[in-house]
Amino acid sequence: MDPQASDLPETLQHLRIDGQRLWASLMELAAIGATPKGGVCRLALSDLDRQGRDLVTRWAREAGMTVTIDKIGNGFMRRPGRNNALPPVMTGSHIDTQPTGGKFDGNYGVLAGIEVVRTLNDHGIQTEAPIEVAFWTNEEGSRFVPVMMGSGVFAQAFTLEHAYAAKDSAGLSVKDELERIGYVGPEEPGAHPIGSYFETHIEQGPVLEDHGQTIGVVTGVLGIRWYDCTVTGMEAHAGPTPMALRKDALQVSAALMQEVVACAHRHPPHGRGTVGMVQVHPNSRNVIPGRVKFSIDLRNASDALCEAMDADIRAVAARLSAESGLPIVIEPVSAYPAQPFHADCVDAVARAAQKLGYSHMPVVSGAGHDAVYMARLAPAGMIFIPCKDGISHNEIEDAQPEHITAGCNVLLHAMLERAGVAAG
Amino acid sequence: MDPQASDLPETLQHLRIDGQRLWASLMELAAIGATPKGGVCRLALSDLDRQGRDLVTRWAREAGMTVTIDKIGNGFMRRPGRNNALPPVMTGSHIDTQPTGGKFDGNYGVLAGIEVVRTLNDHGIQTEAPIEVAFWTNEEGSRFVPVMMGSGVFAQAFTLEHAYAAKDSAGLSVKDELERIGYVGPEEPGAHPIGSYFETHIEQGPVLEDHGQTIGVVTGVLGIRWYDCTVTGMEAHAGPTPMALRKDALQVSAALMQEVVACAHRHPPHGRGTVGMVQVHPNSRNVIPGRVKFSIDLRNASDALCEAMDADIRAVAARLSAESGLPIVIEPVSAYPAQPFHADCVDAVARAAQKLGYSHMPVVSGAGHDAVYMARLAPAGMIFIPCKDGISHNEIEDAQPEHITAGCNVLLHAMLERAGVAAG
Repeated sequence: MDPQASDLPETLQHLRIDGQRLWASLMELAAIGATPKGGVCRLALSDLDRQGRDLVTRWAREAGMTVTIDKIGNGFMRRPGRNNALPPVMTGSHIDTQPTGGKFDGNYGVLAGIEVVRTLNDHGIQTEAPIEVAFWTNEEGSRFVPVMMGSGVFAQAFTLEHAYAAKDSAGLSVKDELERIGYVGPEEPGAHPIGSYFETHIEQGPVLEDHGQTIGVVTGVLGIRWYDCTVTGMEAHAGPTPMALRKDALQVSAALMQEVVACAHRHPPHGRGTVGMVQVHPNSRNVIPGRVKFSIDLRNASDALCEAMDADIRAVAARLSAESGLPIVIEPVSAYPAQPFHADCVDAVARAAQKLGYSHMPVVSGAGHDAVYMARLAPAGMIFIPCKDGISHNEIEDAQPEHITAGCNVLLHAMLERAGVAAG
Repeated sequence: MDPQASDLPETLQHLRIDGQRLWASLMELAAIGATPKGGVCRLALSDLDRQGRDLVTRWAREAGMTVTIDKIGNGFMRRPGRNNALPPVMTGSHIDTQPTGGKFDGNYGVLAGIEVVRTLNDHGIQTEAPIEVAFWTNEEGSRFVPVMMGSGVFAQAFTLEHAYAAKDSAGLSVKDELERIGYVGPEEPGAHPIGSYFETHIEQGPVLEDHGQTIGVVTGVLGIRWYDCTVTGMEAHAGPTPMALRKDALQVSAALMQEVVACAHRHPPHGRGTVGMVQVHPNSRNVIPGRVKFSIDLRNASDALCEAMDADIRAVAARLSAESGLPIVIEPVSAYPAQPFHADCVDAVARAAQKLGYSHMPVVSGAGHDAVYMARLAPAGMIFIPCKDGISHNEIEDAQPEHITAGCNVLLHAMLERAGVAAG
């Protein structure tokens, strides 16, 4: 056992959150923007988002926390520690949702933080360092891009002015909508120290369910490379053109699409390769495609592995182009670096899961989260719990109450380890 | 030498059409609806189609022919023979074009027939059977479907009422437009005997050019099977879903798309397999496709071979479905039977090309032509000439004057063989 973990007093080893209270809060928040199919539509900076923010901050104040809002609308709900000169141990996530989103994505991470504080209150536990719970503005990016807007501004990934200027499809800006709902705070984004950061989240993938594990100890977030690939052939009539005289852009594309998957398999265990978008020109039943454009999404656990996959797929494309005689152009669209989490936080999560007797396994996050930006500022880690069939960004998104409880208990103990407990 | 061919008097062996006159007529007709890029836009039953019909029938009358129009607007331009109780030896094609069509598609076949008659007139040659030149209404089908409308009604492939009811995108009907341009004739479609039928046409494919041959002796028209294929997987986020847990509809589709081409190669020499149209759902860069729908176009020279390709691709799809666990549904969309041409006509074309000293080769037609319907009614054959780069249905469609001349000379001699020449 790690010395830090055993630093917690013996009585605290049995401390558990109130799963029913957490579930009830999740359901109450999910009622704001509830959809007939059981999901939630609570778009960033909408009236419903304001109602959600109002409810969460009311709960925080009822739990004795102070609430600070920064200029991009991020909220920081603080429970003081014994030594308030220490930077807070922070947790958080987001409460905006996709247009046809679920009840748990983001919301769980925020309310798990509130539940940790309620539990500490119930037991009169004082931490050494302060505890903070954050909700980050517009993580989803459905209404305004870029995604992970609040945490991105906080981590100076882009400027406040850039975020303010973003407009939705109706032409409304982030700045105007933030002002309208009353969530432009006084604090400069980023002017807020963080000791360490944890984020609890549904996995949004099928790995934990497939392995029958309760807790995913997230070791990092995959790097992403996005490309547009164009194969140019010769448009020709499907009838009069014999096979030997064709320059069929789709057939060469089909071979390369399969290589995108093969490339992922060549870079295990975390390599991922996806073709999600295809445009065929002229897209007519009896015309041999003259041009095909498709997306390539490559991911892996380190920037070096992403670079290796880039070189791999480019080499394959060059070979297919030489074999077919058809030009293949691969253009980078965007790239996100891999973000390993800090060993201290990863280990704290693993120790908590182990101590609490939950089955657990190391996992990577294939999708971005606010924790990616926090990891640039402080030691960070994430806790995943299973979600049904791995489905998220969907009204049928679902999670089991016992997993919701387990993830929050792991968060509680990981935060206590990092924050320390004041001597009774 | 075949006895029929040697039946022609020795003096006729040297008979040739006037290539310059034919070319001049092609260019004059191409001026009606000429496009800035050198093509022609003369949509069926438009004012320009009327101008084209008026010009062609004027030329026919100037050449001493009588003109009959039937109720679907097909035109029959007749030069009497010595024995007018015999059914005519007919040639023809269409003078409507694609919206961005070329000068030769269809138009060549009609004007080659006029040139044959002019040549016979020049030399005072009387045939035993009458000669007729037909132009068939709306072969292209760009403005009104079905395609090959006039010849289809003539051959009772579908009814006159069905054709009359067809409407263009502006809601105008075939019946109204035929009446407006004054081309509803008195004759019942099909009430018109045919002794044999020839059609001269640009190849609309690359085979003759690739082989450096002047004349394609068309042995038949490929049968066509059209299908819609749907592969159903599981839509999932490209990031959090590891390769082993994916049900990627596009990857299974890509394998099947390649098998469509492999299937064609397994049924040589005329097997053709094309995927021209693809729809990916939800078609998003970072979502593993949950459903892919794509077209399959299979062609071959006989219905038995088309049937064999059908069984082949269904077996491959069943195997891919079993291997991947993803349902694959292949739904027939439409089917057109293969149409072999009559040995007498095919041989007449080959003999004429041989006698005239033109390089020639047997070819199949991968696309439909009015001759397909005529072959249901009488012995029929087609003569192909090369077109530049195999390109048709395009304003840059092009053909060389010497090939235009050669094809018409072959038509002349094939028709004379079938019609017989009255003893001088």
